Amino acid sequence: MKAIVKTTLAATAALAASAGVALAQYEADRDAIRAVLATYENALNASDAAKVMTLYAKDGVFMPQHSLPNVGAEAVRAAYDHVFKSITLEIEFAIDEIAQVSPGWAFARTRSEGFVTINATGDRMPEANQELFIFAKEPSGEWKIARYIFSTTNLPRQ
Amino acid sequence: MKAIVKTTLAATAALAASAGVALAQYEADRDAIRAVLATYENALNASDAAKVMTLYAKDGVFMPQHSLPNVGAEAVRAAYDHVFKSITLEIEFAIDEIAQVSPGWAFARTRSEGFVTINATGDRMPEANQELFIFAKEPSGEWKIARYIFSTTNLPRQ
Repeated sequence: MKAIVKTTLAATAALAASAGVALAQYEADRDAIRAVLATYENALNASDAAKVMTLYAKDGVFMPQHSLPNVGAEAVRAAYDHVFKSITLEIEFAIDEIAQVSPGWAFARTRSEGFVTINATGDRMPEANQELFIFAKEPSGEWKIARYIFSTTNLPRQ
Repeated sequence: MKAIVKTTLAATAALAASAGVALAQYEADRDAIRAVLATYENALNASDAAKVMTLYAKDGVFMPQHSLPNVGAEAVRAAYDHVFKSITLEIEFAIDEIAQVSPGWAFARTRSEGFVTINATGDRMPEANQELFIFAKEPSGEWKIARYIFSTTNLPRQ
């Protein structure tokens, strides 16, 4: 995963205040969200649906391209099982922004690039997407994926 | 635009409390966000980029499928100009959820369905997408689109 752009301490303090959290908590929350994104990247590349599920809220929603929204853990799991049966990913995420908007909510905007292999045919081709994650902090203090959608940044196939 | 499912007063009061706003403010905020979505739907169907821009935050981000993210008003405007030059939409939005997470932030999950006409050829075909909007409340009290991404829910073209 590519490193995020560093901001100044003053800017970070202002963002923490605007999210209603102390600076140390804000930095801990960002680290935790970055860790969720890194684990998600690894789980995708390992086709590991069980690991993906550890990152989602129970009522999480997964909105993959070419599918209706998958609402709740059971539907989300079925959707990832389908994805990993169909394709194998080799991708790297870059974080464009992580924005905490309240003590319990944050969002992240990322892009991912690499290769996708169609399992049925072995065809391997370049892949590039953009993603929007909404994270919720559980009572346990863990940050979970509450909503997640992506779309390709490649031009349409002719 | 299709009507949103009604919730009980007790459930609404709990959601308002969890977002940190009074019930009356919460309901006013939902109405305002619903109005932004309705105006957005109308602006898309009218190919009206100027109207779309009145709905976006100055630092808003538009993440259309088949494009890199467009960051900031100038890039967002150019992207909509490109969209409306290329296609004409006849779509209706359905709201799956509006969730306010703090006094100043909310998100909405929608789906849209209808037809798209390719302006260059006149070809008209069915269109179906899912959308995730993040809204920010400005100091003026207006809700603006801060981040917006969509992806098709149709199967890939063969």
